Amino acid sequence: MSEHDFLKVALAAKEAAAELAPLPRAPKDAALRAIADALVARSAEIVEANAVDVARARENGTSEYMIDRLGLDAGRIEAIAEAVRQVADLPDPVGEVIRGNTLPNGLELRQLRVPLGVIGIIYEGRPNVTVDAAALCLKSGNATLLRGSSSAYSSNTVLVRVMQDALAGTEVPAGAVQLVPGQTRESVKTLMKARGLVDVLIPRGGASLINSVVEESTVPVIETGVGNCHVYVDAEADLDLALEILLNAKVQRPSVCNAAETFLVHAAVADAFVPRALAALAGAGVTVHGDARIASYGEGLGDTVVPVTEEDFGTEYLSLDIAAAVVDSLEDAVAHIRKYGSAHTDAIVTRSVTASRRFVALVDSAAVAVNASTRFTDGGEFGFGAEIGISTQKLHARGPMGLPELTSTKWVYTGEGHLRTSEGTVIASCPNA
Amino acid sequence: MSEHDFLKVALAAKEAAAELAPLPRAPKDAALRAIADALVARSAEIVEANAVDVARARENGTSEYMIDRLGLDAGRIEAIAEAVRQVADLPDPVGEVIRGNTLPNGLELRQLRVPLGVIGIIYEGRPNVTVDAAALCLKSGNATLLRGSSSAYSSNTVLVRVMQDALAGTEVPAGAVQLVPGQTRESVKTLMKARGLVDVLIPRGGASLINSVVEESTVPVIETGVGNCHVYVDAEADLDLALEILLNAKVQRPSVCNAAETFLVHAAVADAFVPRALAALAGAGVTVHGDARIASYGEGLGDTVVPVTEEDFGTEYLSLDIAAAVVDSLEDAVAHIRKYGSAHTDAIVTRSVTASRRFVALVDSAAVAVNASTRFTDGGEFGFGAEIGISTQKLHARGPMGLPELTSTKWVYTGEGHLRTSEGTVIASCPNA
Repeated sequence: MSEHDFLKVALAAKEAAAELAPLPRAPKDAALRAIADALVARSAEIVEANAVDVARARENGTSEYMIDRLGLDAGRIEAIAEAVRQVADLPDPVGEVIRGNTLPNGLELRQLRVPLGVIGIIYEGRPNVTVDAAALCLKSGNATLLRGSSSAYSSNTVLVRVMQDALAGTEVPAGAVQLVPGQTRESVKTLMKARGLVDVLIPRGGASLINSVVEESTVPVIETGVGNCHVYVDAEADLDLALEILLNAKVQRPSVCNAAETFLVHAAVADAFVPRALAALAGAGVTVHGDARIASYGEGLGDTVVPVTEEDFGTEYLSLDIAAAVVDSLEDAVAHIRKYGSAHTDAIVTRSVTASRRFVALVDSAAVAVNASTRFTDGGEFGFGAEIGISTQKLHARGPMGLPELTSTKWVYTGEGHLRTSEGTVIASCPNA
Repeated sequence: MSEHDFLKVALAAKEAAAELAPLPRAPKDAALRAIADALVARSAEIVEANAVDVARARENGTSEYMIDRLGLDAGRIEAIAEAVRQVADLPDPVGEVIRGNTLPNGLELRQLRVPLGVIGIIYEGRPNVTVDAAALCLKSGNATLLRGSSSAYSSNTVLVRVMQDALAGTEVPAGAVQLVPGQTRESVKTLMKARGLVDVLIPRGGASLINSVVEESTVPVIETGVGNCHVYVDAEADLDLALEILLNAKVQRPSVCNAAETFLVHAAVADAFVPRALAALAGAGVTVHGDARIASYGEGLGDTVVPVTEEDFGTEYLSLDIAAAVVDSLEDAVAHIRKYGSAHTDAIVTRSVTASRRFVALVDSAAVAVNASTRFTDGGEFGFGAEIGISTQKLHARGPMGLPELTSTKWVYTGEGHLRTSEGTVIASCPNA
């Protein structure tokens, strides 16, 4: 990709964003439905392009698991289209009045939601993200610059072409959905330095992708996705509950960011809880990376318990592994979470209102769960209807991001000749009003 | 400054931030009042330190205007203390429930305001900012790393010491207010790279300071302050009103970011409006940098009208200068504002509801004024009670920033053994609950 090619699509996106931003809901929903219909109508073409990616992946010795994630067939395309229709059914965040009042001087003040502008998405893996991200951005009035994995480049190229063709028959400019041309690392770098052309970058993928974007980008970034989540079993925990929550948080879907990666047990309940937890985790095929106190309960469980390292405590396994430690107090649990966690989701299991208040107040994470699995930190579960990612940063958006998180705001104030003077507001004389 | 010195204060701030974050309002307000009292009680010491800065400035040939801005006396210190007391009187944004509901599965979901953590402020000029910024951050539960102008280093050192001493007798940790040690450019660079120690950087000052922070910082930045504001006089404008608004926006306080720097006049009213505007601006001592059509009305006004350059249109004068052009349509005015503006505040003067709707929808700025002076874009005028700056970026905060803009959010969900399964939520059995 040349810099010139990139500039061409980025400028097209910027121009489209300016046209798209003031559109009300109806033409945006119509455009989304046109995209959904076109995806289904042109399934064969998409499957054909996808076959090129799949064949190349197979040649490169990609695992069957990854190939399955990459693959598209008519059924999966129908599901992608259905998701787009669901986005059309969601309320439009743009234009929402967030705050507003009449000031003492009579100025009418409103704060409105407006689109961010051009959103760059850098993502790995599945080609459905190409359509999901474009649909969510379009609904919230934003143009999209998509930079997917090079392993899905052929699929993504056709998916974007189908979306652009569908938009050409609607009020939404076709330029509102753009694929960053080229598959090299250079194209990511160019995107990250496109300050002034791109308003926000959202990287979606593994920790190394996200870190490199955060470090190198001059475009503002929303960090997503890395989840080193903890389950803390308090001295006052119901241990049956704790066991089920721990198992659910670890085992139900280990590959996702809201799965648990460490559990901490208060020393007062270690004797009663840890042997049961280890047996249950062993039964579920989980390897426990435990500290010395955890290990002391591990006899007779074969190789279920292995020694934990400092690095383990900071690791997002995304696998059937979990780190574990016994702590002497709630405060020690909090200190551990602050030191090693990724500020995604941390849970406490306790019967005590005071302990839960304290844990919620002291744990500085995007989400804190009380007597519930960490797996609920999710835009769908929270009722957002859709999710572009889970922010683990503090600025702009924190936790699951739905459509409102893809907007900025604008202040509007309306007067009738309001002037500011050192003595306060004066209304200009207006003989012809 | 050594890297070691910086790390010491940054770590102290981070530790203090963790202690400060969960505090409720009362101890924070008490701490702010203790700071106000200490500033007044130790006025003499502060004035003495300030005299060192003033003497050095005078030696360096600094203008009397700048020296006046730098100077502190007992009266000014009393005013600074009074501003701190006013911050104590403001409501506490921390803990506010922004959203919340009971999910269909019974999970109780709340989104709470929480402090950002450690806020770095890089600023120029007046030493009162040292206290203002620290007070606003403290009220919103944040620790502050202050990096003021080296011209005020002696004053800032004593102001921070007085604040820390005052905090030592309160529940707020003294480490919550920190001065970045050293006066070199290196100390700014170290602050900008302190990702993980500093949560947000807010640069306050001129365009070059802000641009360098935005370009170089790996810590998330909130851009503030550059204002290239426009007044557009529509074809349907009341021209008396337009004249007063234009004069107020330009002349009432030319040195501030919400002053007007360009006016645009619809061709349909140019004959009627421009001669009056030029005469009035000339009377107020304003130089008009006009395009050819503006210049055609400038005869007989001496050197009031000078030719405008491309650069003028992009300039924040902060002086008795204004750029001006005649445009053929509202859309051309919007295009001009999009091309040259800084997305701070832009005003339309019009009687037409349709024109005002269109201008508000198309102008992508932090604030849009209708029939009012641009000078109202201000936290005080908006009723925020205080302002840390005016954000001209789209992420996190846009426009005047009060206390809520110095916070992030946290999701809290409370269940009774809620587990997520592929078939939906299951409540764990809890025999002992």
